[in-house]
Amino acid sequence: MSVQYGGIEAGGTKFVCALGTGPSDLQMAQFPTTTPGDTIGQAIDFFKRRSSRDRLAAVGIGTFGPVDPHPGSARFGYITTTPKPGWAQTDFAGVVQRALGVPVAFDTDVNAAAFGEQRWGSAQGIDHFIYLTIGTGIGGGALVGGELVHGLVHPEMGHIRIPHDWKADPYAGACPYHGDCFEGLAAGPALQGRWGQRGETLPADHPAWDLEAYYLALGVANFVCTLSPKRIVMGGGVMRQPRLLSLVREQVLQLLNNYVRAPEILERIEEYIVAPGLGPQAGVLGALALAERAAEQKRATHPW
Amino acid sequence: MSVQYGGIEAGGTKFVCALGTGPSDLQMAQFPTTTPGDTIGQAIDFFKRRSSRDRLAAVGIGTFGPVDPHPGSARFGYITTTPKPGWAQTDFAGVVQRALGVPVAFDTDVNAAAFGEQRWGSAQGIDHFIYLTIGTGIGGGALVGGELVHGLVHPEMGHIRIPHDWKADPYAGACPYHGDCFEGLAAGPALQGRWGQRGETLPADHPAWDLEAYYLALGVANFVCTLSPKRIVMGGGVMRQPRLLSLVREQVLQLLNNYVRAPEILERIEEYIVAPGLGPQAGVLGALALAERAAEQKRATHPW
Repeated sequence: MSVQYGGIEAGGTKFVCALGTGPSDLQMAQFPTTTPGDTIGQAIDFFKRRSSRDRLAAVGIGTFGPVDPHPGSARFGYITTTPKPGWAQTDFAGVVQRALGVPVAFDTDVNAAAFGEQRWGSAQGIDHFIYLTIGTGIGGGALVGGELVHGLVHPEMGHIRIPHDWKADPYAGACPYHGDCFEGLAAGPALQGRWGQRGETLPADHPAWDLEAYYLALGVANFVCTLSPKRIVMGGGVMRQPRLLSLVREQVLQLLNNYVRAPEILERIEEYIVAPGLGPQAGVLGALALAERAAEQKRATHPW
Repeated sequence: MSVQYGGIEAGGTKFVCALGTGPSDLQMAQFPTTTPGDTIGQAIDFFKRRSSRDRLAAVGIGTFGPVDPHPGSARFGYITTTPKPGWAQTDFAGVVQRALGVPVAFDTDVNAAAFGEQRWGSAQGIDHFIYLTIGTGIGGGALVGGELVHGLVHPEMGHIRIPHDWKADPYAGACPYHGDCFEGLAAGPALQGRWGQRGETLPADHPAWDLEAYYLALGVANFVCTLSPKRIVMGGGVMRQPRLLSLVREQVLQLLNNYVRAPEILERIEEYIVAPGLGPQAGVLGALALAERAAEQKRATHPW
C-alpha cells in the first residue's frame, strides 16, 4: 500500500483538508471553522476515515495565526494570540499528532502556500522568493536559501506601512491595529470600505483597480528592496480581477525606476511577478508538501 | 608565523584596509577613493607591504555597489552599475585575487558590516538579524538562517517607500531615483536638505530628531514585518546623535502597536534595536570576518 500525506489549510472561515501525494490524486474535504475542538476534530476524523495508520506518513498544517512555528519552543504548534474567539493559545499540531500518531509539520498559511508553489506551482526550482496572498487580509511567506523564513516570530508582510495617497483616497484604512498599513489599504475589506461594494462586483474599468494596483505595487516594490526575491507569486481573492496583475507589474517598474538593474525585472517582469500555479489550492497543497518533507526528514533520521 | 586576514571596506569617499585576525590586533590604513586602478592598487600594496604570501590567508571585501556577489556569475566580484564616475563594471575581487594569490570574499558593504557584527559585535550568536547603516545613504544587510541574504541581486533596503508626513515635512526627498523613499527622507543629505545644516550640527532638542526618528522607525517597523529579525543593529553617522536610538525604539513600539507579540520587542526593545558593537569599524572588521570564513572554507575543501 502506497504512502499518503495529509494537508490541512486552516483558515479563519473554513478548513480545507487533502489526502494524497500531490495535485493529481487528492481526496479533499472542507468545512466551516467553528470551535477548535470541533474543527480540528473534523480534520482528524477525515484522515482517520480516508486513510490508515499504515499509509498516512505525516500531516502538514498551514494555519491562520499568529502561530508558534519554532520546533524547539514550548508552544510549538500553537495558534497563539489570535483575536479569533476561542482560538487563542490553541494547541493545534500537538492534538493532531497525538490523535494520528504521525509526524506533524506546522507553519503559517502563507508559508505553507509558498512551499506548495515551490513544490508544484509557479516557483519550482526557485530557492529565494515571496508568496503573497491578497484576500480578506494580506499575508506573505518567503523562502530564503531554500528554507521558509520564520525569525523572531514569523513575517507579517501585510502590516508594513506604505505611502497613503490621501488626495486620491481619503479612506482611512481597515486594519484594526494600524489603520492604513498595506493590508489596511489594499486587502478586500479596504476595497469594500472605500468603494461601498465588494471587490468582485467592481467592473474591470473601475478606478478602484488602478489605486489597488498602486498600493499592491508599493508593497511589492518594498519586498523587492528588502529581500531581493527571485520571483513574487501573488494569489488570493483580490487578485482574481484579471487586469490587476499586469497593472501591478507596470506600477512596480515605475516605482523601482530602473534602480534594481536585473534583467529578470527590467526585461521579464511578466515572469517575475506571477499568479500562483496552484491557484486557490496553494495553501492545502503546501500543507501536503510540508507533510511530505516531514516524512522524508523522519526517514532520513530513522531509515529503518 | 601565524595566519593573517585582510579586510577592505570600500566606500564611495574612502577605502579602509585592515590586516590581522580580529579587533585586537589590527593594522589599518585608509585613503581616498579615486580611480579604481589607483585605489584598489593602494589596497593591494598595503597587504603586500605589511604581510606576506605565507601569512595572508584570504582577503574580504565589503564595498559600495551595486555589486555582483554571486560566486557562480560571470561578473562575480564586480562593482556593476554604479553612477560613481569610472567605477561602473569594475572587476574588484578578481584584481585583488590575481595580485595577492589568496581567496577573496566579496560582498556589499552592509552585508560585510552585518557579518562583522555577528562575529565580534552586537549580534554575536544571532543567526537572523538586520544591520542598518544610516549615513550619506541608507543600506541594510540581513542574515537569515546564518547566511547573508543576496537573492536576485542584493537587498536595497534604503529604497523602500514609507509614508511621507507632508504636513510636518514639505521636503521633497533627496533620492535621485525615488525622491522620498526611506533613504531620500532619512539619510544625511535629507537632514541637510530639510533643515539647511548638517545633521551633526543640529542640537539634541531640535525637532529634526523626532521627525528623523519617525522615518527611521517606519523603516525598521517595515523590516520587522517583512523579515521578523531577532535583532536590529543601527549604525552610521546619523545615528551618532545620542538621543536618536531611544527615540526610534519608542516610535517602533507605537507603530507596531502590540501587533507583533514577542517579549523581545514588547519587554526588551533596548536589547532588540541596538547600536553596533564595532562602531565605525563594523564594515572593515566584517570584511576581515568574510576573509576568515573564506580561508576556513578553503581549508575545509583542501585540508592538506
